[in-house]
This record gives sequence, structure tokens and C-alpha cells, in this order.
Amino acid sequence: MTTKTIPTTSLCTHTLTSLTYGDSNLVEDLMGKKTFTEVMLMQILGRTPRPVDLRITDVVLIVLMEHGLTPSAIAARLIYMSAPENLQGAVSAGLLAVGSSFVGTMENCSKLLDRILAAPDADAEAQAIAREYKALKSPVPGFGHHLHKPVDPRAYKLLEMGKAEHELQGHRIRALETLSKAVDEAAGRAITLNATGAVAALLGEIEVPTNVMRGFAVISRAAGLVAHIVEEQNNPSGRFIWDTVEHAIPFVRPGAKQE
Amino acid sequence: MTTKTIPTTSLCTHTLTSLTYGDSNLVEDLMGKKTFTEVMLMQILGRTPRPVDLRITDVVLIVLMEHGLTPSAIAARLIYMSAPENLQGAVSAGLLAVGSSFVGTMENCSKLLDRILAAPDADAEAQAIAREYKALKSPVPGFGHHLHKPVDPRAYKLLEMGKAEHELQGHRIRALETLSKAVDEAAGRAITLNATGAVAALLGEIEVPTNVMRGFAVISRAAGLVAHIVEEQNNPSGRFIWDTVEHAIPFVRPGAKQE
Amino acid sequence: MTTKTIPTTSLCTHTLTSLTYGDSNLVEDLMGKKTFTEVMLMQILGRTPRPVDLRITDVVLIVLMEHGLTPSAIAARLIYMSAPENLQGAVSAGLLAVGSSFVGTMENCSKLLDRILAAPDADAEAQAIAREYKALKSPVPGFGHHLHKPVDPRAYKLLEMGKAEHELQGHRIRALETLSKAVDEAAGRAITLNATGAVAALLGEIEVPTNVMRGFAVISRAAGLVAHIVEEQNNPSGRFIWDTVEHAIPFVRPGAKQE
Amino acid sequence: MTTKTIPTTSLCTHTLTSLTYGDSNLVEDLMGKKTFTEVMLMQILGRTPRPVDLRITDVVLIVLMEHGLTPSAIAARLIYMSAPENLQGAVSAGLLAVGSSFVGTMENCSKLLDRILAAPDADAEAQAIAREYKALKSPVPGFGHHLHKPVDPRAYKLLEMGKAEHELQGHRIRALETLSKAVDEAAGRAITLNATGAVAALLGEIEVPTNVMRGFAVISRAAGLVAHIVEEQNNPSGRFIWDTVEHAIPFVRPGAKQE
Repeated sequence: MTTKTIPTTSLCTHTLTSLTYGDSNLVEDLMGKKTFTEVMLMQILGRTPRPVDLRITDVVLIVLMEHGLTPSAIAARLIYMSAPENLQGAVSAGLLAVGSSFVGTMENCSKLLDRILAAPDADAEAQAIAREYKALKSPVPGFGHHLHKPVDPRAYKLLEMGKAEHELQGHRIRALETLSKAVDEAAGRAITLNATGAVAALLGEIEVPTNVMRGFAVISRAAGLVAHIVEEQNNPSGRFIWDTVEHAIPFVRPGAKQE
Repeated sequence: MTTKTIPTTSLCTHTLTSLTYGDSNLVEDLMGKKTFTEVMLMQILGRTPRPVDLRITDVVLIVLMEHGLTPSAIAARLIYMSAPENLQGAVSAGLLAVGSSFVGTMENCSKLLDRILAAPDADAEAQAIAREYKALKSPVPGFGHHLHKPVDPRAYKLLEMGKAEHELQGHRIRALETLSKAVDEAAGRAITLNATGAVAALLGEIEVPTNVMRGFAVISRAAGLVAHIVEEQNNPSGRFIWDTVEHAIPFVRPGAKQE
Repeated sequence: MTTKTIPTTSLCTHTLTSLTYGDSNLVEDLMGKKTFTEVMLMQILGRTPRPVDLRITDVVLIVLMEHGLTPSAIAARLIYMSAPENLQGAVSAGLLAVGSSFVGTMENCSKLLDRILAAPDADAEAQAIAREYKALKSPVPGFGHHLHKPVDPRAYKLLEMGKAEHELQGHRIRALETLSKAVDEAAGRAITLNATGAVAALLGEIEVPTNVMRGFAVISRAAGLVAHIVEEQNNPSGRFIWDTVEHAIPFVRPGAKQE
Repeated sequence: MTTKTIPTTSLCTHTLTSLTYGDSNLVEDLMGKKTFTEVMLMQILGRTPRPVDLRITDVVLIVLMEHGLTPSAIAARLIYMSAPENLQGAVSAGLLAVGSSFVGTMENCSKLLDRILAAPDADAEAQAIAREYKALKSPVPGFGHHLHKPVDPRAYKLLEMGKAEHELQGHRIRALETLSKAVDEAAGRAITLNATGAVAALLGEIEVPTNVMRGFAVISRAAGLVAHIVEEQNNPSGRFIWDTVEHAIPFVRPGAKQE
């Protein structure tokens, strides 16, 4: 053995006649008494969620659920067409798109908010971040959106909702606004604050750790992808997508590329 | 092109300044006004869900979320240890376990309920099903559970809740009870009606098609697996699982097996 | 514990200073002495492969590797764009397309060959199969191809190669030809025997069990998908595919569909 | 459209009666004439591989195929038990373990070799790298192995084979040896050079780009996982693994952990 300590779990246990989630008896305490959002949050955060936690989680999960025929949804539909006996495989394939470039980007933004909050001078740190990304010619995570300009309406609404919640500390929302100001200054123009940026701030406000945030995108997108698969069952698009892509991208002989 | 008709989507569209889910403006109609369960169900069923639909969906999603260190959770934890930069990969791996043998079995049970409801004589059809599986020496989907005996407490509670909902027709719950009676008779003793059997009946009562049901297990388990990954972050088990399994299963030389 | 017997493994074991694959010392017996195909087949079949086994396996793996911008390749490219830090996720997503409808269909065809070989009268059984699928208005697995007509050149070559190997029994190739004749008769015209049909026959000739065959498609396609990802690194298509698909499939309001 | 240029592909095209891989007619030029390794390498590297390329690729693929009951293999077996109709899902799940922590680590090591080769003073750069990782208290990628000490026999053999190939430049092997010397000096003792370190050097010698290397682990491990699934079919371990893990990891109530 190369490990010495025995890990433990606090998520769930069972006897022949009962199931326990954390401290709660599933049948007695949860079924018919709690919503899905409530139990999910209880299990992820390891504490009883407050009403404000549920409001923030619900709005975040709704916002991340859908953006139409994204890479994630297209992949799920193509896999479903290929293996319809295997719905879970189609969802799994689509979820693999929740990465560092799309959907999962709230994690990258939240790391920046962590930096700003840990720094002695928030403004200076935000300006340093903006300069770093400008030097890399790379968008700052949480900013810019190729489909929503000049304002991402989801981001605006999320921040408005977050600010109206008086039980939240507001420090991560302020860190995001500080970063937004610095990003605009570095660019010399207003840069769209996008939905994943606002999600990073709001999930942080309810004490979701940065490295857990991507999980909310995964849960939400799982629901969105199931809806895409249901639509694919009723109004199939897979073969059409295949034909369209195959005809849109020409074959060129390997040598021809270098010419 | 081998396809003639152009498919359409009704799930989501966007302009530079708005997002629409189905018939609803995301920012105006949904954010802060609807729960995750509500929007998910609206998108999957293509209609505004009733309160009873939400109650049934919430309880089903809660029940399917967890069963401790299942194959699904173990796989997710091992993949997370191997590629922690990639939370979505760990969830995807775990979701691939939602198949025909565990968790996803409500689909198999629901097909039997479809058969019973389509038959002229429900009792005779249920008895025929029970005989078929007995001849195959195979458990009837929705019945039996190696960890819950003699009664699966989740199943009992689910059916109780379903029967208390007067807006539901009750025909699928009755079909399941008819099947349960036939299964007991064929076995000559009481056979545990398990949670996936009750889930099959209840999701059918709110008009979820049989081939969509597995999607609810996928959504729910995605949330459960995120909680397992959070626990893995705080209390790692992956290396211990690896060591334990490697030491528990001995290597025998290929020739030695046949001796 | 619900299991009594302890499973064993014969694939691999290790000490601090050695690795053993089956009966072979990795460093002494395999490295520099055996090809990838040879070791793979040794591990999968649990025996030392003959030269004829290697020739058949190599040609099968080559044939299954590529078919251009298939659903599998499109999905892998989209996932790679979304999470480029995670090459394995893109391959995994693409492999999930190796299902019952494409690529993995040799398994379905091989089951029919199993039936024909087990039947007292091969011709009668083949005719029964052809009639069954005709009644279902469903193509017989291994027959028909929407992109290769009237002859799948890969299938023709595979069978020619299989028949030239005198160490093979030829009984599964003959079963496939019997089936092909019956399919043509039932249709009243020549139906294309496709590559997966020929693969089913050839893998069976080298004693690959039916329920293992899909694994060869998975291995081969993994290699093909890595090549797609390399091309995606050098000549990105993901964003173009997204734009193309999103513009090709119109949004219609949910109500509008029923009108 | 947000993209202007139309991507192209050079991997594969087809007509009704032919398939072309790159510049080669599949039926005329490849089937029966080339091995799987040869065609795979042709497609990935975009050139006709030399015999030395094939020798290096074969030995690398053999070495990466197996290491017994790894997290990857355990996950694949558990998923196969849960959804046996879906072999590709089990392989996909297992491949998701080819990440930054295991198997896929040759990519991390190769980045260090890239740094050493790009630096004006290779020794100084190697020493800088060794110091950086020492400061992080983190093992240098390509060095250390919890199961092979003091020498990883695979690494030793790989480097011996690489050095015996006179067509290779040897510069990446020398960079690895420079790094190895610096790592030993920084530690004050000999640190195991592991198999993924040697793989990084050898794949680099045949001009596989750093960000493609993980693909070779994926292809090789796909073959290894298929063998595990075949063993699982014949000698099932999934239920035993589930029971063993569930019994080895105790449940503690959430509050109890903090005490």
C-alpha cells in the first residue's frame, strides 16, 4: 500500500431499509419536502442551504442551461444519432465541451477574483490582470462574447439580482466590477462583461469554491442536453448536420496545402 | 445531400441583446422567476409544467441522485484523480454508468408498463411478462434490489406520493401494481419493488415518454457526481481505491486459469 | 459482501523492477520484438497470434480508421475546440459514436452469422433473416451504405483477402455470402454488402467473439480521431462547424411546429 | 458568420466507389500492404513514415498499453458492468483518465525538453527546471514512479532503443539525460526516470509535436482497455470492486469530520 490513511465519505449511506444523505433520512426528511436544487446544494456545499443560496443557484443553473446549437449540443445530437440506445453517452459527449474555452470559463474568471480579493490593493491588482491579458492578446476570462454585444443581458441581470440580495457580502461582485473597470481602461473602450463572469461572482458570493464552479455548468448543461436529445428524437437533425458539415469542408490533397 | 428536409429547433435562439428559451425571454420571463426544475421541465416536455409536474420531478431527481460509492461514483473519483484539471471528464465518465443494468433501468420497466397499458387484459399481460422473465431466470426490470430488502423504502414513498396527487391519472401506477402482483405470484413470494420501478410509473404519470426517462437519471446523477468530486477534493479516495482494488484482485498467469 | 468468489486478472502484473503482460516480460520479450498489433491481439485473444491473425487484424483496423467528417470526427473536433487542454476528452466523445447505428454495426451482423452457423439449414436461416428485416423495413446489418453504391470497395477487398488465407476455415465468410444471396433475393435486386459486414466475417474467422468485435472499431477509430485532432490543431474547423450548423438549422417557436 | 476562411481536410475523402486516405487509395495502396501502425502514423504525421518511425511508435504503443488494474482500467470495468450493451462507453470512460497526472504526463515532460532545447545553455535551463519543481515540492514530469524503483525498466530499454537508432538526431534524448542529471543533483540522490519521460524523448525524436503526444497514450490505452473488457466478460470483477470499495471506505456523519 502506498496510502496510509483511510478516506471516508459523508454523502450517503444505506441499510437494508433506509437511505441517508449526509445527516438527512432520504425518505423522512427530503422526499416531498425539499426541491432538487436544495438537495443538490446540501450535498455539494455540505450544509443546509439558505433561501438566498437557492435563489442564486436556480438563476445560475437556468442561465447556463442553453445557448442553442452550441458545440456541446451538436456533439450530443451526433452521438445520439450514432448510438440511440445509449442516451447517457450522448449527454456525456456533450458535457465534455464544458471546458476552459466555453461554459466552464467561470472558473478562470473566479481565479482572477480570488487574486483581486487576496491583494492589498484591489484596483492595482485588477489593472495588473488587465495588462497581463492585453500583453497576451487574449480576452480576460469573464469578458467578451462573440454573440452578445455590447452588453450580455444575462450578466447585467445576474449582477442586479446579486446586488439586491442583502444577505450576500457583495465582495466578489465588487471585485468583478473592479476588474471590469480595469479591463475597459486597458482596452480604451467598454468590453462586454459576459454571463460566465457574473456567474463566477455570484457563485462565489454563496461560497462555492472556485474549483467547484464548473460543476454547476455541468449539472445545468446536462439538463439542457437532455432537452436537445428529446428534440432530436422528435425532429432529427443528426444526418442533416453530418451532410452539411461534410459538404461545407472540402478535401484537399495533403501536398496541396503547402502550395 | 442524402437528406431533403431541413430540421428546426425550438429550444433556444439569441440575438445580440437577448436569449429566448422556447417561448420565453430568458432575462424577462425566467431569471429570478422560475426554478431550475421548472425551466428544465419546460424545455424537456415542451410545455409549461404544472405544480404537480414539479413535485414529481423534484422527488424523482432527489431519489436518483445518490446511492453512495456506486460504480458511477467510483469511476468519477478515479477519473478526477487522474485528470483533476478536467472536472467535466470525471462527471462524464460516471454518467456512462447510467445504463441498462443500474440507474437507467426505469426505461426497461416503463416499456413493460407500456405493454400492460396497451394490452386488452392488463392482468394477463402482467402475468405473461412475469412468466417470460422467470423463464429467462432474469429479474423483472423495476423489481429486486441487492441492497434493499424486503422493501425499498424509496419505492414505497414514491408510490404513496404519486397516489396522493389527484391531478394524475394513476393508470401507470396501477399498471405497476398489477405487474408487482404478477411478479410476486410467479415467484411464490414477495419481490421488492425497487425505486427505479416506482420512478418509471411516476415519470410516466407526468407524461415523460419512456425513451426520455433515462435522461432524468442522467441529470440527477450529474448533481450527485459533482458532490462526490467535491468530497474527493477535500478528502481524496482515488489512490486508496486504486491500491485497494489492485491488492484485492490477484494476477494469475494466463495458463493457470484453465487448470 | 454480495459476491463470493474473488476475480483474477491475467493481463498484467508488476514488481518494482519488471512488468509482465500475460506470460511475457514486457522489456525482455515484447519491446523491440513485437508490433503494436501483435501485443494488442495477444492481450485481447489471450493467445499468441499467428501471422494470419495479424494480417487480418491490420487490414480490419485500417479499414475502420477513417471515413472523413463523420459524426464521430465532427464531435471530436467540436469538443477539442471547447476543451483543448483535454485531448483525451475529444477522443472519448468521438468514440461514443461507435454504436449500434454506425461503425459498431459489425456486431449486429456477426450475430446474424452466429445464427446462420448454428442453424441446421444455413440457406433457410439466411432467408428467414432477410424476411424478418424486410418485414421491419430495416436494412440487414452489414448491408447497404448511403455513401457507397453499388459496391463497397472495402468489403470486396476484405472478402478477397479473407478467402486467400488458407489457414482460415472460411465458414463465416461463406455464411456472409449465404446471407448476401438471401438479402438480394428478398429485395429483388443486388444490395451492397458493406465494410462492417465483411469485417464481421473476417474477425470471426480469426476467432474474435461477436461481443468483442466493436472493440476493434474503438481502437481503430481512436487512431483516426487523433489524426483529426492534429488536423484541428493545424487547420481549425470547430468554429466554422458551429457557425455553419447554427445558421443552417432555423429556430421556430414551439407553437409554430404544430401548425 | 464570425469566421471568414473555410477550413479544409486532408485526411480522407470518398466517392461512391472509392476511399482515399491522404494521398493513398485505401483499397489499392493500403489494404493488405500497410500495417495499422503505418497507416495511423501516416495520418497523424501527414507523411510516409520511415521504418525507424514505425519501430519507435510500436515500442511506445506497447509500453503505454498496460499497467494492470489502474484507475483507467477500474473505471472501464465498472462502466462496462453498468452498461454492457455499450462497450464504447466503457473504453471512453477509461480513456478520460489519460490526463495530466498519469499516462498523459509525457506531454508535461516534453514541454520541459522543448524549453531545454530552446535555451542557449541546456545545462543551466535543466538546473533551473529542477530548482523550480523542488521549490514547488512537486515531482518533475517524467521522473519518479510510485511503483517502479529505483529504475523504471521500461524507461531504460526505451532510451537504449532510441540511442541505437542512428537515423534519429538524438537531441531530445540528450535533453532528457541533461534534465535527469539536474534532477538528481537537485535531489541529492538518483531519481527514477520513468517511462513517460522516455516516451516524451522518443516521440519527439520522430517529430511528434508535444501537444500530439498524449494521443499516442490514448490509442494505446484504448487497446489495453478493450483487453480489460474482454477479461471482464469472461471473469467479471465489477461487482467485487464495488463491494470491496464500498466496504473499505466508511461513512461518517458530516458533523463528525470536523471534530
